[in-house]
Amino acid sequence: MIIVMQERSPQKQIQTVMENVKALGYQPHLIQGQLRTVVAVVGDEREKPRIQALENLPGVEKIVPILEPYKLASKEVKKEKSVVNADGVKIGGDVLVVMAGPCSVESEKQIIGIAEEVKKAGAQILRGGAFKPRTSPYSFQGLEKEGLVLLAKARKITGLKIITEVISPTDVPLVEEYADLLQIGARNMQNFALLKEVGKCRKPILLKRGMSGTIKELLMSAEYILSQGNSQVILCERGIRTFEDYTRNTLDLSAVPVIREHSHLPVIVDPSHGVGKWNLVPPLCKAAVAVGADGLLIEVHADPAMAYSDGAQSLKPKKFAVLMEELRKYAALEGKKM
Amino acid sequence: MIIVMQERSPQKQIQTVMENVKALGYQPHLIQGQLRTVVAVVGDEREKPRIQALENLPGVEKIVPILEPYKLASKEVKKEKSVVNADGVKIGGDVLVVMAGPCSVESEKQIIGIAEEVKKAGAQILRGGAFKPRTSPYSFQGLEKEGLVLLAKARKITGLKIITEVISPTDVPLVEEYADLLQIGARNMQNFALLKEVGKCRKPILLKRGMSGTIKELLMSAEYILSQGNSQVILCERGIRTFEDYTRNTLDLSAVPVIREHSHLPVIVDPSHGVGKWNLVPPLCKAAVAVGADGLLIEVHADPAMAYSDGAQSLKPKKFAVLMEELRKYAALEGKKM
Amino acid sequence: MIIVMQERSPQKQIQTVMENVKALGYQPHLIQGQLRTVVAVVGDEREKPRIQALENLPGVEKIVPILEPYKLASKEVKKEKSVVNADGVKIGGDVLVVMAGPCSVESEKQIIGIAEEVKKAGAQILRGGAFKPRTSPYSFQGLEKEGLVLLAKARKITGLKIITEVISPTDVPLVEEYADLLQIGARNMQNFALLKEVGKCRKPILLKRGMSGTIKELLMSAEYILSQGNSQVILCERGIRTFEDYTRNTLDLSAVPVIREHSHLPVIVDPSHGVGKWNLVPPLCKAAVAVGADGLLIEVHADPAMAYSDGAQSLKPKKFAVLMEELRKYAALEGKKM
Amino acid sequence: MIIVMQERSPQKQIQTVMENVKALGYQPHLIQGQLRTVVAVVGDEREKPRIQALENLPGVEKIVPILEPYKLASKEVKKEKSVVNADGVKIGGDVLVVMAGPCSVESEKQIIGIAEEVKKAGAQILRGGAFKPRTSPYSFQGLEKEGLVLLAKARKITGLKIITEVISPTDVPLVEEYADLLQIGARNMQNFALLKEVGKCRKPILLKRGMSGTIKELLMSAEYILSQGNSQVILCERGIRTFEDYTRNTLDLSAVPVIREHSHLPVIVDPSHGVGKWNLVPPLCKAAVAVGADGLLIEVHADPAMAYSDGAQSLKPKKFAVLMEELRKYAALEGKKM
Repeated sequence: MIIVMQERSPQKQIQTVMENVKALGYQPHLIQGQLRTVVAVVGDEREKPRIQALENLPGVEKIVPILEPYKLASKEVKKEKSVVNADGVKIGGDVLVVMAGPCSVESEKQIIGIAEEVKKAGAQILRGGAFKPRTSPYSFQGLEKEGLVLLAKARKITGLKIITEVISPTDVPLVEEYADLLQIGARNMQNFALLKEVGKCRKPILLKRGMSGTIKELLMSAEYILSQGNSQVILCERGIRTFEDYTRNTLDLSAVPVIREHSHLPVIVDPSHGVGKWNLVPPLCKAAVAVGADGLLIEVHADPAMAYSDGAQSLKPKKFAVLMEELRKYAALEGKKM
Repeated sequence: MIIVMQERSPQKQIQTVMENVKALGYQPHLIQGQLRTVVAVVGDEREKPRIQALENLPGVEKIVPILEPYKLASKEVKKEKSVVNADGVKIGGDVLVVMAGPCSVESEKQIIGIAEEVKKAGAQILRGGAFKPRTSPYSFQGLEKEGLVLLAKARKITGLKIITEVISPTDVPLVEEYADLLQIGARNMQNFALLKEVGKCRKPILLKRGMSGTIKELLMSAEYILSQGNSQVILCERGIRTFEDYTRNTLDLSAVPVIREHSHLPVIVDPSHGVGKWNLVPPLCKAAVAVGADGLLIEVHADPAMAYSDGAQSLKPKKFAVLMEELRKYAALEGKKM
Repeated sequence: MIIVMQERSPQKQIQTVMENVKALGYQPHLIQGQLRTVVAVVGDEREKPRIQALENLPGVEKIVPILEPYKLASKEVKKEKSVVNADGVKIGGDVLVVMAGPCSVESEKQIIGIAEEVKKAGAQILRGGAFKPRTSPYSFQGLEKEGLVLLAKARKITGLKIITEVISPTDVPLVEEYADLLQIGARNMQNFALLKEVGKCRKPILLKRGMSGTIKELLMSAEYILSQGNSQVILCERGIRTFEDYTRNTLDLSAVPVIREHSHLPVIVDPSHGVGKWNLVPPLCKAAVAVGADGLLIEVHADPAMAYSDGAQSLKPKKFAVLMEELRKYAALEGKKM
Repeated sequence: MIIVMQERSPQKQIQTVMENVKALGYQPHLIQGQLRTVVAVVGDEREKPRIQALENLPGVEKIVPILEPYKLASKEVKKEKSVVNADGVKIGGDVLVVMAGPCSVESEKQIIGIAEEVKKAGAQILRGGAFKPRTSPYSFQGLEKEGLVLLAKARKITGLKIITEVISPTDVPLVEEYADLLQIGARNMQNFALLKEVGKCRKPILLKRGMSGTIKELLMSAEYILSQGNSQVILCERGIRTFEDYTRNTLDLSAVPVIREHSHLPVIVDPSHGVGKWNLVPPLCKAAVAVGADGLLIEVHADPAMAYSDGAQSLKPKKFAVLMEELRKYAALEGKKM
């Protein structure tokens, strides 16, 4: 951490800062520049986060952190890439994993129909929401437990693994019982009570980036899960909120190589939520593969115009199958199977 | 809702759209323009949110909603301003209510000391975090139940009402037992499981705007609480996330008159989180009063440089007292007492 | 355009709105909903932009535009994709065009050295700034005319076409004399005096999206150039400003298919400015090709650590050559040559 | 500047960094931490901006600047607040200066009518656009020279000073001839050719913050003007672009105290563009005064529904007069006359 003093701050103020730094257990180094005095603080700041509050001391202009605040999620702790194992399906290895299915589980017929279609097209994991976080209390909130049962049925029939969202700490045991992977949605990226709870799960967690979540915060939220003992975390870029309104969100594909640079965790991309319009999904899936994603999360619905939620961004099974064919070639260029 | 057809969309596609609109229970009106055909859909869209999915029908260019999606939070349902009653302290009436205190409850001495100071300066409500949502799992997470007990003690001694944050649905009964108002933090604005839970409380809820929450989404989140039966909701502007980095967030003071225009709910402002630097807090408090806020949430700490959290944005009690004196004059101009 | 009236607006207000609409030369259609009255306005709004001001009439809640505001840039006017011809190099056709070179022209040796390297690697166009828009007045502002002369020399030696930025209307004739394509930088996307001036040029214009420019505004800025008679416009996505700070900007790759949907103009991507770090450039170049871009703008410098500007985001020639080899495979999948 | 080395970077890399720092004329200080080696660079970085490019050297993780990049605009160079003198009207002193008038000059009758009204209500400066930067090439572009002549006529009749926008370097001499203050609009905040040109003027310049301009960049743009010799610069907050869409922009009132902290230049607020709706303008004017602004820029039009531009955000003269009465009380609390 670097403490920058105000211009011409008197010797006494600098002294007080040095003493406070020592009192917090760090080693201060004084550097007198032409215009500014700077105190470089040596020591691992991550377990003593109170140093930022020294900004309040007289004469301090600002405090600049040096180290990234995450540890277990960082490459410092683990250099080689992590591979997450979802009951045999490996994410982060040499296979590009596609998770596909409807936004919401609506009925047995619907979910099993789609499961069979996406399986045939080459998906390995079935997505489908049973507990739905909806902006409006008047919107369909999901079939809840019944939805989980239907997902399990689809798994039994097709052999696909299943991923579904959990939105409350109290539902974690129930969802863990049924799902192969638990999803934390964008709105819950900083729902720390929920993160702690899934950190105690034995199942892999797919953690979505929040709409206003920085990559650093996403990694800090992964750190919550990891620090509770669950090392099976997959990160997911799904678009951030900007001023652009032709698309639902702005899909930040640079997040993939940035995360790769800082973390060993696998990272996948959800273009369906990222752009919000089905016809934009295929080009962005290809781009996500080309930028190095370990997998994709794609919404597929047999009758999007009648979907209970997110119909506008869902592909029909036929279009999904065509897309999968195309993606194989892009995956091959990245040295990945599908 | 307005369905805009693509240029030169054939009659058959228009027909299909009209039929689908009827099938969903709405009345379609066809308007043929020079360049575009438009289908105006009459009916209350709020309880049948699936119409957006018609975007998937062939020939549809886009769908433009007309009505605001919230109801109970809107002025259509209730024209006159709501006044929330927190065990005798009224928010939304002719008194500007100041809620002040430390970010975290740290110890009995700390919280009671600050409580006495802010009471003397004129605050009516004591704030203090017992359950802390922290970006890092290694940061101080709050004293939890012990913090609640200390807050209750401070209430007993000073007569101040107390407000504290709840971050998990399972903690709601415990927090409700101790607090006079429950706070939903910015990161939980769309934690719908938590919103539903506090919707069943008998205590008033302070709902903070999320960092990337639109005003419309804030009102929809209020709608969650209201629709569960709790009509005592106060909204809180606390800064949104933008590209500007001199301040921690960008405090959106225009949110106050915008909310006033669309909703009957009281709205307060939290400049401490909005700007993140104590020296910017006083001018923004004055501006918040001038723009019409019903109250303020201000962080106060006796020794900010040693605070467990958010020290950089906390005012010392002496500075807070000076600020309160100033604010009285601004409140008076707005016809409010303090 | 749709004029939404406030709830229960009296007949007289609706009447006044209808009359004002007619006075402006449009045809109003009245639709009475359960909760709202809506006036649909038929007619081409693009040449009579004052209708928005009717929001000021009593009883009007809001006005929602239906048509896109651009015309010449839209697919309504021209269905087939445009191909821009830069003295023989075609952008928007079946060749993926790479424009590469240093941020700034620094010296004869520098620019000719890089030109030869990028030519050998397969670039068709040499980029290099002679007039530099720099955030600081104390930063290197470019070699100006001397830079143009050096670029022309590099063209003569290598056969590459040259693109360079113009930042002032008064410099347009000079830059047009030397360059094969003129670039309008992100900061000048809405410098309308400059747009009008380059609209009178006979050379193609590369128009970059502003840091806070919506896609709609980018197309409106293209409309400025097109409406002055210059039909040779190429659009360029180069990253928008968001809260994320690991990258210099957030590269919005979804802009490529969105522009494709709405406009016939070619669109290229500049990942160097988009991300600002050289090691992130290669994956984002691949993604840009996969998402359907017609070309790429890539910064290359022989000694980035000593570059006068933007060194941090420049590739060395050797890395650029390796990237070009990789890109050929991605271009081939898109049916494009390189 | 602080150069942070990657973890476990070898001694040789550190050595190379030290040498490069010296070669650029700075003094390096080596600090070996537990986890990271850091090189603190002492010296004024503002005139040698190339140090950032050292990020390209092997082993460098990132470079963190310490000093603000502006000088003449900073309080380091000039501690006391600057007062700008616009032909006798002083901005930045103990008078709150109101600049009011229509978005565009439309006709003699219109501009003189409004001038008389705003004068009567207490405004000191008349605003009115003669050269209009419009998003659409089909929108009214201003009366140009005729508009300037009409403004001068209004000045003669009312005694008000006049401010008007200049959008092209070539128009600067003409606009300077007529106007008392020249305005640089938000879209031109980083039009450096224009900034240099007005830096040579003898008249005060009102510099608006760009829609995506940081406060730091705004000060850097002021630095352009100041460094050309024109010390009469007024800054103007007018809203930044965010995801919120109830308002046209998000008015960042915290910019006022932030600028006050870092710069000696006067700063005013333009709530009309900030929020874009006339009914929100009065509360935000009051807030702008309360937060410490030196003045206000307010759009006033006699018949907003018929205005050529920005009608939706214009106040009618009667409402403006009422607002001025109210503002006097808020100005008084800030120790300012009106």
